[in-house]
Amino acid sequence: MNSYSPQFFMSEALRLAEKALFTTSPNPRVGCVIVQNNEIVGRGYHMKAGESHAEVMALEEAGNRSEGSDVYVTLEPCSHTGRTPPCVNALIKAKVKKVFIAMQDPNPLVSGQGIQKLKEAYIDVEVGVMEAQAQQLNIGFICRMTKKSPYVRAKLAVSIDGKTALHNGKSQWITGEAARADVQYWRASSCAILTGIGTVLSDNPKLSVRLYENARQPLRVVVDSELKIPLDADILHEKPLLIVYANDKQKKLAQLEALGIECIQLDDRGKVDLAALIKILAEREMNEVWIEAGEGLNGAFLKANLIDELMIYYAPVILGSEAKGMFTLPAYENLENKITTTLIDHRWVGQDLRMRFKLK
Amino acid sequence: MNSYSPQFFMSEALRLAEKALFTTSPNPRVGCVIVQNNEIVGRGYHMKAGESHAEVMALEEAGNRSEGSDVYVTLEPCSHTGRTPPCVNALIKAKVKKVFIAMQDPNPLVSGQGIQKLKEAYIDVEVGVMEAQAQQLNIGFICRMTKKSPYVRAKLAVSIDGKTALHNGKSQWITGEAARADVQYWRASSCAILTGIGTVLSDNPKLSVRLYENARQPLRVVVDSELKIPLDADILHEKPLLIVYANDKQKKLAQLEALGIECIQLDDRGKVDLAALIKILAEREMNEVWIEAGEGLNGAFLKANLIDELMIYYAPVILGSEAKGMFTLPAYENLENKITTTLIDHRWVGQDLRMRFKLK
Repeated sequence: MNSYSPQFFMSEALRLAEKALFTTSPNPRVGCVIVQNNEIVGRGYHMKAGESHAEVMALEEAGNRSEGSDVYVTLEPCSHTGRTPPCVNALIKAKVKKVFIAMQDPNPLVSGQGIQKLKEAYIDVEVGVMEAQAQQLNIGFICRMTKKSPYVRAKLAVSIDGKTALHNGKSQWITGEAARADVQYWRASSCAILTGIGTVLSDNPKLSVRLYENARQPLRVVVDSELKIPLDADILHEKPLLIVYANDKQKKLAQLEALGIECIQLDDRGKVDLAALIKILAEREMNEVWIEAGEGLNGAFLKANLIDELMIYYAPVILGSEAKGMFTLPAYENLENKITTTLIDHRWVGQDLRMRFKLK
Repeated sequence: MNSYSPQFFMSEALRLAEKALFTTSPNPRVGCVIVQNNEIVGRGYHMKAGESHAEVMALEEAGNRSEGSDVYVTLEPCSHTGRTPPCVNALIKAKVKKVFIAMQDPNPLVSGQGIQKLKEAYIDVEVGVMEAQAQQLNIGFICRMTKKSPYVRAKLAVSIDGKTALHNGKSQWITGEAARADVQYWRASSCAILTGIGTVLSDNPKLSVRLYENARQPLRVVVDSELKIPLDADILHEKPLLIVYANDKQKKLAQLEALGIECIQLDDRGKVDLAALIKILAEREMNEVWIEAGEGLNGAFLKANLIDELMIYYAPVILGSEAKGMFTLPAYENLENKITTTLIDHRWVGQDLRMRFKLK
């Protein structure tokens, strides 16, 4: 009998972790398989905060076949007691033989401790199997643990010539149905969805997750310096919602708060302090933030160096010079001033082309 | 011994035809291989107007091994006497057994006649082997034969946000070296390279073919309504060159003509009549026209529905809202007014992404 490679089993563990893509936050997505004699005898994944960790679920399914088994887990098992007991103890108690770990815990305060405890219990440990894939899976959690900031993606749906809306604000729809369905996937994967008052006024979006029934609703955030949001805006009808503003508008503030809507003042010379906003989102344990805004807010985030990744859907259409652009930025005098990115992925999504660019 | 497929041999014929990519115009690119007992015994391609046709060159190499052979040719052999005798006669005289033809002659006046004559001489004929590839190879020639118009490509080098130059006109360089080398390939493949006075004034380009030594120099065309071109512009130093203008400027006209430069007046209410220009280029047997211009002329060509294909190099940089765009067009009130295209190809060229869009 051929034996499968560690990558084979770790792939399955990653697939299990993805089952909880829309539910685990603020916790990381983790999957685990237990292998006895080249056969998977236990599968587990962490569904959401407070529920079983992946390793515990997999050990339960494997039962007494855990003894002497190989364990594949996408993230270093925890060694500390949180809402659940430490997974490391469960693995030791089950007398597993070897643990394959895709990546260490990104939290610098505990990273390596789980591995250390396993080794002290004479369990073999191998770290780094499919590490890049495991990092992608928890890109926001890792970013928050290591940089104390969420991973911020800005999404734009544009024409060939980089236009996001007609001069009169009309933008529904530039891209096709497949691209819009793809956006739903990324919204659902995100902990917060952020937009500006301009988009609220022109599109009246809900910015909620619709395609996925089991998804938790991300926090929706509206950047609205002057609290211009209409009290009948669709986005106000669902929770959780946060409005950030800059300038005192006592009457409107009272009206919004009467509706039970959280409003926070973050003033930076009349504009919302975007860096302070991102900091607040990190404190609220937001792993991935998804921006769907217009050229003004996109430009402001870019200028403040707060975007990690641009996800741009290019539709094969031309809207021309009078239409609205992607990023309001100052006039550069030299090409050396340009903002540089790295194209990390491009693929068809329906008849549109999706490109992902990494900043910083 | 395994025998090779007709596609195998036709691929070789297409590769031979491509050897003359930069030289055959106004004639089509044609390659030919002669196969005897599953072995290529003759190869030929049409190098340039007035020289041997591909079939004749291949028959010469094959000599008496042509008798009873299979012939693969990328375009229907000619049946009429031009600058050289008809290839069909040569094939009949050589007593070949069968002729595989990728595509019929696109000229509706003679299409099918060569095939007919071969059949009348009891030679087997199979048409359509790798037809799509053969059509790509002569897309301009086919367009001119069937629509009496060259195939017009517009090239743009832009940032992620669809910007072609800074507000002050600086654009050297937005894309990388690989993209610029690719542009040289397309320039060399074209019969005419067309630009506007704006580009001449801001970039002072030569628009000549530099990378390929054996390439013929395409006709360079400057659209310059007011004859504003400086007499020391680099583009004036090489021939062939054509300047088209709209408004009477007798003194400048005399100066340019004194330099031996051809100038043609094509007035359409103070602007150059672009449709008339394209018609003149067709009359001069231009198969492929390559536009490298700024937003004004690009927009005018697009509005006049004179572009067949956009070739856009997207560099992973951002230039912002104050930079120059791609197409000057009127303001659309509804998204139904948008110009639609089809994305036909996308690929990396160095660190840039090249996308090709078909219009019409």
